[in-house]
Amino acid sequence: MSKLHKEAKETAEKPTILVTNDDGITAPGIAALIEVAKQYGRVVVVAPDAPQSGMGHAITIGKPLRLNHVNLFGDVEAYQCSGTPVDCVKIAVDKILHKRPDFCLSGINHGSNSSINIIYSGTMSAAMEAGIEGIPAVGFSYEDYSFEADFSLAQQVANEVLQKLIGGKLPKTIYNVNIPKIGLSKYKGLRACKQANAKWKENFVERTDPTGKKYFWLTGEFQNRDKGKDTDVWALSHGYASLVPVRYDLTDHELLANIQL
Amino acid sequence: MSKLHKEAKETAEKPTILVTNDDGITAPGIAALIEVAKQYGRVVVVAPDAPQSGMGHAITIGKPLRLNHVNLFGDVEAYQCSGTPVDCVKIAVDKILHKRPDFCLSGINHGSNSSINIIYSGTMSAAMEAGIEGIPAVGFSYEDYSFEADFSLAQQVANEVLQKLIGGKLPKTIYNVNIPKIGLSKYKGLRACKQANAKWKENFVERTDPTGKKYFWLTGEFQNRDKGKDTDVWALSHGYASLVPVRYDLTDHELLANIQL
Repeated sequence: MSKLHKEAKETAEKPTILVTNDDGITAPGIAALIEVAKQYGRVVVVAPDAPQSGMGHAITIGKPLRLNHVNLFGDVEAYQCSGTPVDCVKIAVDKILHKRPDFCLSGINHGSNSSINIIYSGTMSAAMEAGIEGIPAVGFSYEDYSFEADFSLAQQVANEVLQKLIGGKLPKTIYNVNIPKIGLSKYKGLRACKQANAKWKENFVERTDPTGKKYFWLTGEFQNRDKGKDTDVWALSHGYASLVPVRYDLTDHELLANIQL
Repeated sequence: MSKLHKEAKETAEKPTILVTNDDGITAPGIAALIEVAKQYGRVVVVAPDAPQSGMGHAITIGKPLRLNHVNLFGDVEAYQCSGTPVDCVKIAVDKILHKRPDFCLSGINHGSNSSINIIYSGTMSAAMEAGIEGIPAVGFSYEDYSFEADFSLAQQVANEVLQKLIGGKLPKTIYNVNIPKIGLSKYKGLRACKQANAKWKENFVERTDPTGKKYFWLTGEFQNRDKGKDTDVWALSHGYASLVPVRYDLTDHELLANIQL
Protein backbone atom coordinates (compact mmCIF):
# COMPACT_ATOMS: atom_id res chain seq x y z
CA MET A 1 0.00 0.00 0.00
CA SER A 2 1.46 3.40 -0.97
CA LYS A 3 1.86 5.98 1.81
CA LEU A 4 -0.72 8.22 0.16
CA HIS A 5 -3.23 5.39 -0.16
CA LYS A 6 -2.68 4.41 3.47
CA GLU A 7 -3.21 7.98 4.66
CA ALA A 8 -6.38 8.29 2.62
CA LYS A 9 -7.67 5.05 4.08
CA GLU A 10 -6.92 6.16 7.64
CA THR A 11 -8.74 9.45 7.05
CA ALA A 12 -11.70 7.60 5.61
CA GLU A 13 -11.87 5.31 8.65
CA LYS A 14 -11.63 8.11 11.21
CA PRO A 15 -15.14 9.12 12.27
CA THR A 16 -16.23 12.74 11.91
CA ILE A 17 -17.40 14.05 15.28
CA LEU A 18 -19.49 17.20 15.52
CA VAL A 19 -19.11 18.98 18.88
CA THR A 20 -21.52 21.62 20.15
CA ASN A 21 -22.90 22.95 23.45
CA ASP A 22 -25.33 25.47 24.91
CA ASP A 23 -23.02 27.45 27.22
CA GLY A 24 -21.39 29.06 24.19
CA ILE A 25 -18.17 28.38 22.31
CA THR A 26 -15.95 30.06 24.94
CA ALA A 27 -17.20 27.93 27.87
CA PRO A 28 -14.50 25.73 29.45
CA GLY A 29 -16.77 22.67 29.20
CA ILE A 30 -16.65 22.50 25.40
CA ALA A 31 -12.85 22.74 25.41
CA ALA A 32 -12.76 19.82 27.86
CA LEU A 33 -15.01 17.76 25.55
CA ILE A 34 -12.98 18.59 22.41
CA GLU A 35 -9.84 17.33 24.18
CA VAL A 36 -11.47 13.93 24.70
CA ALA A 37 -13.24 13.75 21.31
CA LYS A 38 -9.99 14.44 19.38
CA GLN A 39 -8.72 11.01 20.37
CA TYR A 40 -11.57 9.33 18.50
CA GLY A 41 -11.76 11.11 15.16
CA ARG A 42 -11.83 14.31 13.17
CA VAL A 43 -13.55 16.93 15.33
CA VAL A 44 -15.55 19.83 13.88
CA VAL A 45 -16.95 22.36 16.35
CA VAL A 46 -20.10 24.42 15.65
CA ALA A 47 -21.33 26.12 18.81
CA PRO A 48 -23.36 29.19 19.82
CA ASP A 49 -21.51 32.52 19.90
CA ALA A 50 -23.21 33.33 23.25
CA PRO A 51 -24.73 31.39 26.17
CA GLN A 52 -27.97 29.59 25.23
CA SER A 53 -28.86 27.76 28.44
CA GLY A 54 -32.53 26.89 28.85
CA MET A 55 -33.20 27.25 25.12
CA GLY A 56 -34.71 23.78 24.89
CA HIS A 57 -35.41 22.67 21.33
CA ALA A 58 -35.77 26.24 20.03
CA ILE A 59 -34.93 26.94 16.39
CA THR A 60 -34.49 30.32 14.72
CA ILE A 61 -37.07 30.88 12.02
CA GLY A 62 -37.96 34.58 12.25
CA LYS A 63 -34.50 35.98 11.55
CA PRO A 64 -31.28 34.99 9.79
CA LEU A 65 -28.22 33.34 11.32
CA ARG A 66 -24.56 34.33 11.23
CA LEU A 67 -21.75 31.80 11.05
CA ASN A 68 -18.06 32.59 11.55
CA HIS A 69 -14.87 30.56 11.54
CA VAL A 70 -12.93 30.89 14.82
CA ASN A 71 -9.48 29.89 15.92
CA LEU A 72 -9.91 28.71 19.49
CA PHE A 73 -8.93 25.05 19.66
CA GLY A 74 -5.51 24.67 17.97
CA ASP A 75 -5.84 22.55 14.83
CA VAL A 76 -9.53 21.77 15.37
CA GLU A 77 -11.89 23.30 12.79
CA ALA A 78 -14.38 25.50 14.67
CA TYR A 79 -17.28 27.86 13.92
CA GLN A 80 -19.49 30.06 16.07
CA CYS A 81 -23.14 30.53 15.15
CA SER A 82 -25.59 33.21 16.27
CA GLY A 83 -28.38 30.65 16.69
CA THR A 84 -29.54 28.10 19.24
CA PRO A 85 -27.83 24.74 19.91
CA VAL A 86 -30.36 23.04 17.58
CA ASP A 87 -29.58 25.61 14.86
CA CYS A 88 -25.88 24.76 15.28
CA VAL A 89 -26.48 21.08 14.51
CA LYS A 90 -28.66 21.92 11.51
CA ILE A 91 -26.23 24.42 9.99
CA ALA A 92 -23.27 22.13 10.64
CA VAL A 93 -24.90 19.32 8.64
CA ASP A 94 -26.17 21.52 5.80
CA LYS A 95 -23.48 24.19 5.40
CA ILE A 96 -20.22 22.98 6.97
CA LEU A 97 -20.00 19.19 6.78
CA HIS A 98 -22.42 18.85 3.83
CA LYS A 99 -23.29 15.41 5.26
CA ARG A 100 -24.24 13.84 8.54
CA PRO A 101 -21.26 13.44 10.89
CA ASP A 102 -20.69 9.97 12.35
CA PHE A 103 -21.31 11.20 15.90
CA CYS A 104 -22.48 14.36 17.64
CA LEU A 105 -21.33 15.32 21.13
CA SER A 106 -22.82 18.17 23.12
CA GLY A 107 -21.41 19.77 26.27
CA ILE A 108 -19.77 19.36 28.63
CA ASN A 109 -22.58 21.40 30.16
CA HIS A 110 -21.88 23.51 33.22
CA GLY A 111 -24.69 22.13 35.41
CA SER A 112 -26.80 18.97 35.58
CA ASN A 113 -29.26 17.96 32.88
CA SER A 114 -30.59 14.92 34.66
CA SER A 115 -34.28 14.19 35.05
CA ILE A 116 -36.73 16.82 33.75
CA ASN A 117 -33.85 19.22 33.01
CA ILE A 118 -33.43 17.34 29.73
CA ILE A 119 -36.52 19.10 28.38
CA TYR A 120 -35.27 22.66 29.04
CA SER A 121 -31.68 21.91 28.09
CA GLY A 122 -30.09 23.30 24.95
CA THR A 123 -27.26 20.78 25.42
CA MET A 124 -29.62 17.81 25.23
CA SER A 125 -31.78 19.36 22.52
CA ALA A 126 -28.71 19.60 20.28
CA ALA A 127 -28.03 15.90 20.91
CA MET A 128 -31.70 15.09 20.23
CA GLU A 129 -31.69 17.07 16.99
CA ALA A 130 -28.70 15.02 15.85
CA GLY A 131 -30.60 11.87 16.87
CA ILE A 132 -33.63 12.94 14.81
CA GLU A 133 -31.27 13.28 11.84
CA GLY A 134 -30.04 9.73 12.44
CA ILE A 135 -26.71 10.70 14.04
CA PRO A 136 -25.72 8.83 17.24
CA ALA A 137 -25.36 11.57 19.86
CA VAL A 138 -24.41 12.15 23.47
CA GLY A 139 -25.04 15.15 25.70
CA PHE A 140 -22.60 15.42 28.61
CA SER A 141 -23.42 17.53 31.67
CA TYR A 142 -21.46 18.04 34.87
CA GLU A 143 -23.15 18.90 38.17
CA ASP A 144 -20.79 21.85 38.77
CA TYR A 145 -22.15 25.17 37.38
CA SER A 146 -18.89 27.07 37.88
CA PHE A 147 -16.74 28.21 34.94
CA GLU A 148 -13.78 27.27 37.17
CA ALA A 149 -15.03 23.68 37.52
CA ASP A 150 -12.54 20.81 37.44
CA PHE A 151 -13.55 18.65 34.46
CA SER A 152 -11.20 15.69 35.22
CA LEU A 153 -13.96 13.27 36.22
CA ALA A 154 -16.29 14.54 33.48
CA GLN A 155 -13.54 13.92 30.90
CA GLN A 156 -12.91 10.44 32.30
CA VAL A 157 -16.61 9.60 31.94
CA ALA A 158 -16.79 11.10 28.43
CA ASN A 159 -13.83 8.93 27.50
CA GLU A 160 -15.53 5.83 28.92
CA VAL A 161 -18.77 6.55 27.01
CA LEU A 162 -16.99 7.27 23.72
CA GLN A 163 -14.94 4.08 23.98
CA LYS A 164 -18.14 2.06 24.36
CA LEU A 165 -20.18 4.00 21.78
CA ILE A 166 -17.60 4.31 19.03
CA GLY A 167 -16.31 0.81 19.81
CA GLY A 168 -19.82 -0.56 19.18
CA LYS A 169 -20.51 -1.75 22.75
CA LEU A 170 -23.39 0.73 23.19
CA PRO A 171 -26.36 0.89 20.79
CA LYS A 172 -26.08 3.89 18.45
CA THR A 173 -28.81 6.19 19.76
CA ILE A 174 -29.13 9.39 21.82
CA TYR A 175 -27.75 9.47 25.38
CA ASN A 176 -28.09 11.89 28.26
CA VAL A 177 -24.93 11.48 30.38
CA ASN A 178 -24.58 13.33 33.69
CA ILE A 179 -21.47 13.40 35.84
CA PRO A 180 -21.63 13.84 39.63
CA LYS A 181 -19.68 16.59 41.38
CA ILE A 182 -17.48 14.34 43.53
CA GLY A 183 -13.80 13.58 43.89
CA LEU A 184 -12.28 11.14 41.37
CA SER A 185 -11.65 8.61 44.15
CA LYS A 186 -15.33 8.49 45.08
CA TYR A 187 -16.56 7.75 41.52
CA LYS A 188 -18.31 4.36 41.37
CA GLY A 189 -18.82 4.03 37.59
CA LEU A 190 -21.31 4.53 34.80
CA ARG A 191 -24.91 3.46 35.41
CA ALA A 192 -27.71 3.01 32.83
CA CYS A 193 -30.82 4.74 34.22
CA LYS A 194 -34.21 6.12 33.43
CA GLN A 195 -35.11 9.81 33.65
CA ALA A 196 -36.38 10.54 37.18
CA ASN A 197 -39.93 11.89 37.32
CA ALA A 198 -39.27 15.33 38.78
CA LYS A 199 -40.30 18.94 38.21
CA TRP A 200 -39.20 22.48 38.99
CA LYS A 201 -41.66 24.36 41.17
CA GLU A 202 -41.34 27.86 39.73
CA ASN A 203 -40.89 30.80 42.04
CA PHE A 204 -40.62 34.19 40.33
CA VAL A 205 -38.68 36.87 42.15
CA GLU A 206 -40.63 40.14 41.85
CA ARG A 207 -38.66 43.41 41.69
CA THR A 208 -39.08 47.01 40.61
CA ASP A 209 -36.88 48.52 37.90
CA PRO A 210 -35.32 52.02 38.07
CA THR A 211 -38.37 53.52 36.30
CA GLY A 212 -40.78 52.02 38.82
CA LYS A 213 -42.06 49.18 36.65
CA LYS A 214 -42.36 45.62 37.95
CA TYR A 215 -40.30 42.78 36.55
CA PHE A 216 -40.11 39.06 37.30
CA TRP A 217 -37.13 36.74 37.39
CA LEU A 218 -37.59 32.98 37.07
CA THR A 219 -36.19 30.83 39.85
CA GLY A 220 -37.39 27.46 41.05
CA GLU A 221 -37.09 24.56 43.43
CA PHE A 222 -36.29 21.06 42.15
CA GLN A 223 -38.84 18.51 43.34
CA ASN A 224 -38.11 14.83 42.77
CA ARG A 225 -41.29 12.72 42.76
CA ASP A 226 -39.40 9.55 41.93
CA LYS A 227 -37.62 7.70 44.72
CA GLY A 228 -36.54 4.64 42.71
CA LYS A 229 -32.94 3.42 42.54
CA ASP A 230 -33.27 3.09 38.77
CA THR A 231 -33.24 6.86 38.11
CA ASP A 232 -30.53 9.27 37.03
CA VAL A 233 -31.10 11.42 40.13
CA TRP A 234 -30.47 8.43 42.40
CA ALA A 235 -27.32 7.45 40.47
CA LEU A 236 -25.82 10.95 40.67
CA SER A 237 -26.42 11.23 44.41
CA HIS A 238 -24.79 7.83 44.98
CA GLY A 239 -21.47 8.36 43.23
CA TYR A 240 -22.41 7.16 39.73
CA ALA A 241 -22.44 8.91 36.39
CA SER A 242 -25.86 8.39 34.79
CA LEU A 243 -26.49 7.30 31.21
CA VAL A 244 -30.09 7.55 29.94
CA PRO A 245 -30.99 6.36 26.42
CA VAL A 246 -33.32 8.97 24.94
CA ARG A 247 -36.14 8.89 22.39
CA TYR A 248 -37.91 11.69 20.53
CA ASP A 249 -41.20 9.87 20.04
CA LEU A 250 -43.28 11.65 22.68
CA THR A 251 -46.35 9.43 22.18
CA ASP A 252 -47.63 7.90 25.41
CA HIS A 253 -48.15 4.48 23.78
CA GLU A 254 -49.50 2.86 26.94
CA LEU A 255 -52.24 5.46 27.25
CA LEU A 256 -52.92 5.45 23.50
CA ALA A 257 -53.84 1.76 23.68
CA ASN A 258 -56.56 2.64 26.21
CA ILE A 259 -58.17 5.64 24.51
CA GLN A 260 -61.73 5.13 23.21
CA LEU A 261 -63.10 7.99 21.14
CA MET B 1 -79.66 27.41 49.69
CA SER B 2 -79.14 31.20 49.77
CA LYS B 3 -78.46 32.92 46.44
CA LEU B 4 -74.97 33.87 47.60
CA HIS B 5 -74.20 30.33 48.68
CA LYS B 6 -75.47 28.97 45.35
CA GLU B 7 -73.35 31.44 43.36
CA ALA B 8 -70.28 30.55 45.42
CA LYS B 9 -70.90 26.86 44.79
CA GLU B 10 -71.30 27.40 41.04
CA THR B 11 -68.06 29.37 40.91
CA ALA B 12 -66.30 26.65 42.87
CA GLU B 13 -67.50 24.00 40.46
CA LYS B 14 -66.52 25.88 37.33
CA PRO B 15 -63.05 24.78 36.25
CA THR B 16 -60.31 27.37 35.82
CA ILE B 17 -58.86 27.13 32.32
CA LEU B 18 -55.52 28.71 31.47
CA VAL B 19 -55.19 29.62 27.78
CA THR B 20 -51.88 30.38 26.09
CA ASN B 21 -50.25 30.05 22.66
CA ASP B 22 -47.00 30.67 20.79
CA ASP B 23 -48.18 32.93 17.96
CA GLY B 24 -48.64 35.80 20.43
CA ILE B 25 -51.67 37.20 22.21
CA THR B 26 -52.94 39.10 19.14
CA ALA B 27 -53.07 36.03 16.86
CA PRO B 28 -56.60 35.11 15.68
CA GLY B 29 -56.08 31.48 16.77
CA ILE B 30 -56.03 32.28 20.48
CA ALA B 31 -59.23 34.33 20.19
CA ALA B 32 -60.89 31.34 18.50
CA LEU B 33 -59.77 29.05 21.33
CA ILE B 34 -60.95 31.45 24.07
CA GLU B 35 -64.41 31.51 22.46
CA VAL B 36 -64.67 27.72 22.83
CA ALA B 37 -63.01 27.51 26.27
CA LYS B 38 -65.39 30.11 27.80
CA GLN B 39 -68.23 27.62 27.56
CA TYR B 40 -66.44 25.24 29.92
CA GLY B 41 -65.20 27.43 32.78
CA ARG B 42 -63.44 30.56 33.97
CA VAL B 43 -60.82 31.42 31.37
CA VAL B 44 -57.58 33.22 32.21
CA VAL B 45 -55.26 34.10 29.33
CA VAL B 46 -51.48 34.47 29.71
CA ALA B 47 -49.78 34.57 26.34
CA PRO B 48 -46.59 35.93 24.76
CA ASP B 49 -46.58 39.62 23.80
CA ALA B 50 -44.92 38.70 20.47
CA PRO B 51 -44.71 35.66 18.17
CA GLN B 52 -42.70 32.79 19.69
CA SER B 53 -43.01 30.07 17.05
CA GLY B 54 -40.25 27.48 17.09
CA MET B 55 -39.27 28.31 20.67
CA GLY B 56 -39.64 24.68 21.78
CA HIS B 57 -39.35 24.24 25.52
CA ALA B 58 -37.21 27.37 25.99
CA ILE B 59 -37.38 29.21 29.31
CA THR B 60 -36.01 32.66 30.11
CA ILE B 61 -33.32 32.51 32.77
CA GLY B 62 -30.77 35.14 31.76
CA LYS B 63 -33.08 38.15 31.90
CA PRO B 64 -36.25 39.30 33.65
CA LEU B 65 -39.81 39.03 32.35
CA ARG B 66 -42.52 41.68 31.98
CA LEU B 67 -46.19 40.94 32.57
CA ASN B 68 -49.04 43.30 31.69
CA HIS B 69 -52.81 43.14 31.97
CA VAL B 70 -54.53 43.60 28.60
CA ASN B 71 -58.11 44.18 27.55
CA LEU B 72 -58.53 42.17 24.37
CA PHE B 73 -61.17 39.53 25.00
CA GLY B 74 -64.21 41.23 26.54
CA ASP B 75 -64.76 40.04 30.10
CA VAL B 76 -61.97 37.45 29.96
CA GLU B 77 -59.00 38.18 32.25
CA ALA B 78 -55.88 38.40 30.08
CA TYR B 79 -52.17 39.14 30.42
CA GLN B 80 -49.31 39.43 27.98
CA CYS B 81 -45.84 38.26 28.97
CA SER B 82 -42.47 39.08 27.42
CA GLY B 83 -41.31 35.44 27.77
CA THR B 84 -41.69 32.15 25.94
CA PRO B 85 -44.85 30.00 25.97
CA VAL B 86 -43.35 27.87 28.77
CA ASP B 87 -42.60 31.05 30.78
CA CYS B 88 -46.27 32.03 30.34
CA VAL B 89 -47.48 28.82 31.97
CA LYS B 90 -44.99 29.16 34.82
CA ILE B 91 -45.80 32.81 35.58
CA ALA B 92 -49.55 32.15 35.31
CA VAL B 93 -49.36 29.46 37.99
CA ASP B 94 -47.01 31.36 40.32
CA LYS B 95 -48.03 35.02 39.94
CA ILE B 96 -51.57 35.21 38.50
CA LEU B 97 -53.58 32.16 39.54
CA HIS B 98 -51.45 31.39 42.63
CA LYS B 99 -52.44 27.75 42.08
CA ARG B 100 -52.60 25.18 39.31
CA PRO B 101 -55.51 25.75 36.94
CA ASP B 102 -57.79 22.75 36.29
CA PHE B 103 -56.87 22.68 32.60
CA CYS B 104 -54.42 24.37 30.26
CA LEU B 105 -55.17 24.92 26.57
CA SER B 106 -52.61 26.14 24.06
CA GLY B 107 -53.27 27.45 20.55
CA ILE B 108 -55.04 27.36 18.25
CA ASN B 109 -51.70 27.37 16.47
CA HIS B 110 -51.46 28.77 12.97
CA GLY B 111 -49.80 25.74 11.34
CA SER B 112 -49.52 22.01 12.03
CA ASN B 113 -47.70 20.60 15.03
CA SER B 114 -48.13 16.97 14.09
CA SER B 115 -45.29 14.47 14.07
CA ILE B 116 -41.78 15.79 14.88
CA ASN B 117 -43.08 19.39 14.87
CA ILE B 118 -44.17 18.76 18.46
CA ILE B 119 -40.54 19.05 19.56
CA TYR B 120 -39.95 22.50 18.02
CA SER B 121 -43.39 23.84 18.91
CA GLY B 122 -43.91 26.51 21.56
CA THR B 123 -47.63 25.65 21.51
CA MET B 124 -47.00 22.04 22.50
CA SER B 125 -44.18 22.94 24.92
CA ALA B 126 -46.62 25.15 26.85
CA ALA B 127 -49.05 22.20 27.06
CA MET B 128 -46.20 19.90 28.11
CA GLU B 129 -45.04 22.32 30.80
CA ALA B 130 -48.59 22.29 32.20
CA GLY B 131 -48.52 18.50 32.07
CA ILE B 132 -45.23 18.40 33.98
CA GLU B 133 -46.94 20.52 36.65
CA GLY B 134 -49.78 17.99 36.83
CA ILE B 135 -52.30 20.05 34.83
CA PRO B 136 -54.26 18.22 32.10
CA ALA B 137 -53.41 20.09 28.91
CA VAL B 138 -54.16 20.21 25.20
CA GLY B 139 -52.31 21.93 22.40
CA PHE B 140 -54.47 22.66 19.35
CA SER B 141 -52.94 23.34 15.95
CA TYR B 142 -54.59 23.99 12.61
CA GLU B 143 -52.90 23.12 9.31
CA ASP B 144 -53.55 26.62 7.90
CA TYR B 145 -50.67 29.08 8.57
CA SER B 146 -52.61 32.16 7.44
CA PHE B 147 -53.75 34.85 9.90
CA GLU B 148 -56.94 34.99 7.79
CA ALA B 149 -57.62 31.27 8.33
CA ASP B 150 -61.20 30.08 8.93
CA PHE B 151 -61.18 28.46 12.39
CA SER B 152 -64.70 26.92 12.19
CA LEU B 153 -63.53 23.31 11.95
CA ALA B 154 -60.73 23.88 14.46
CA GLN B 155 -63.26 25.28 16.94
CA GLN B 156 -65.57 22.32 16.35
CA VAL B 157 -62.73 19.90 17.10
CA ALA B 158 -61.64 21.90 20.19
CA ASN B 159 -65.22 21.71 21.41
CA GLU B 160 -65.33 17.95 20.85
CA VAL B 161 -62.04 17.41 22.72
CA LEU B 162 -63.02 19.65 25.66
CA GLN B 163 -66.36 17.89 26.02
CA LYS B 164 -64.59 14.55 26.28
CA LEU B 165 -61.71 15.79 28.47
CA ILE B 166 -63.65 17.94 30.92
CA GLY B 167 -66.50 15.44 30.89
CA GLY B 168 -64.08 12.73 32.03
CA LYS B 169 -64.26 10.56 28.89
CA LEU B 170 -60.61 11.14 28.05
CA PRO B 171 -57.77 10.39 30.52
CA LYS B 172 -56.41 13.60 32.09
CA THR B 173 -53.01 13.90 30.46
CA ILE B 174 -51.29 15.97 27.73
CA TYR B 175 -52.68 15.88 24.18
CA ASN B 176 -51.39 17.09 20.83
CA VAL B 177 -54.46 17.80 18.69
CA ASN B 178 -54.09 18.77 15.02
CA ILE B 179 -56.90 19.85 12.72
CA PRO B 180 -56.77 19.27 8.95
CA LYS B 181 -57.23 22.13 6.49
CA ILE B 182 -60.37 20.81 4.81
CA GLY B 183 -64.00 21.86 4.40
CA LEU B 184 -66.33 21.13 7.33
CA SER B 185 -68.30 18.67 5.19
CA LYS B 186 -65.19 16.57 4.52
CA TYR B 187 -64.27 16.16 8.21
CA LYS B 188 -64.36 12.49 9.24
CA GLY B 189 -63.87 12.82 13.02
CA LEU B 190 -61.26 12.68 15.77
CA ARG B 191 -58.70 9.89 15.65
CA ALA B 192 -56.32 8.76 18.42
CA CYS B 193 -52.86 8.37 16.87
CA LYS B 194 -49.18 8.07 17.49
CA GLN B 195 -46.61 10.70 16.50
CA ALA B 196 -45.36 9.88 12.98
CA ASN B 197 -41.62 9.25 12.74
CA ALA B 198 -40.62 12.15 10.49
CA LYS B 199 -37.92 14.80 10.28
CA TRP B 200 -37.21 18.13 8.64
CA LYS B 201 -34.29 18.03 6.23
CA GLU B 202 -32.78 21.45 6.81
CA ASN B 203 -31.87 23.62 3.88
CA PHE B 204 -30.35 27.00 4.73
CA VAL B 205 -30.86 29.79 2.22
CA GLU B 206 -27.55 31.66 1.88
CA ARG B 207 -27.66 35.41 1.17
CA THR B 208 -25.49 38.50 1.41
CA ASP B 209 -26.52 41.47 3.57
CA PRO B 210 -26.20 45.14 2.47
CA THR B 211 -22.69 45.35 4.03
CA GLY B 212 -21.50 42.31 2.07
CA LYS B 213 -21.60 39.80 4.94
CA LYS B 214 -23.14 36.34 4.53
CA TYR B 215 -26.23 35.28 6.42
CA PHE B 216 -28.26 32.07 6.52
CA TRP B 217 -32.00 31.54 6.79
CA LEU B 218 -33.39 28.21 7.99
CA THR B 219 -35.84 26.44 5.71
CA GLY B 220 -36.51 22.75 5.40
CA GLU B 221 -38.31 19.90 3.73
CA PHE B 222 -40.62 17.63 5.72
CA GLN B 223 -39.72 13.97 5.32
CA ASN B 224 -42.11 11.36 6.67
CA ARG B 225 -40.35 8.05 7.36
CA ASP B 226 -43.50 6.47 8.79
CA LYS B 227 -46.11 5.14 6.40
CA GLY B 228 -48.42 3.54 9.00
CA LYS B 229 -52.14 4.31 9.22
CA ASP B 230 -51.78 4.74 12.98
CA THR B 231 -49.94 8.08 12.74
CA ASP B 232 -51.07 11.69 13.05
CA VAL B 233 -49.72 12.52 9.59
CA TRP B 234 -51.86 9.77 8.04
CA ALA B 235 -54.96 10.91 9.95
CA LEU B 236 -54.58 14.55 8.84
CA SER B 237 -54.15 13.63 5.20
CA HIS B 238 -57.26 11.42 5.32
CA GLY B 239 -59.79 13.88 6.71
CA TYR B 240 -59.36 13.21 10.44
CA ALA B 241 -58.26 15.46 13.29
CA SER B 242 -55.43 13.73 15.17
CA LEU B 243 -55.19 13.33 18.94
CA VAL B 244 -51.85 12.09 20.31
CA PRO B 245 -51.44 11.46 24.07
CA VAL B 246 -48.03 12.86 25.05
CA ARG B 247 -45.47 12.02 27.72
CA TYR B 248 -42.45 13.95 28.98
CA ASP B 249 -40.43 10.93 30.08
CA LEU B 250 -37.91 10.81 27.24
CA THR B 251 -36.28 7.56 28.40
CA ASP B 252 -36.10 4.90 25.72
CA HIS B 253 -37.22 2.14 28.11
CA GLU B 254 -37.01 -0.62 25.50
CA LEU B 255 -33.39 0.17 24.76
CA LEU B 256 -32.57 0.71 28.44
CA ALA B 257 -33.55 -2.89 29.18
CA ASN B 258 -30.91 -4.05 26.69
CA ILE B 259 -27.94 -1.93 27.74
CA GLN B 260 -25.02 -3.77 29.31
CA LEU B 261 -22.30 -1.54 30.78
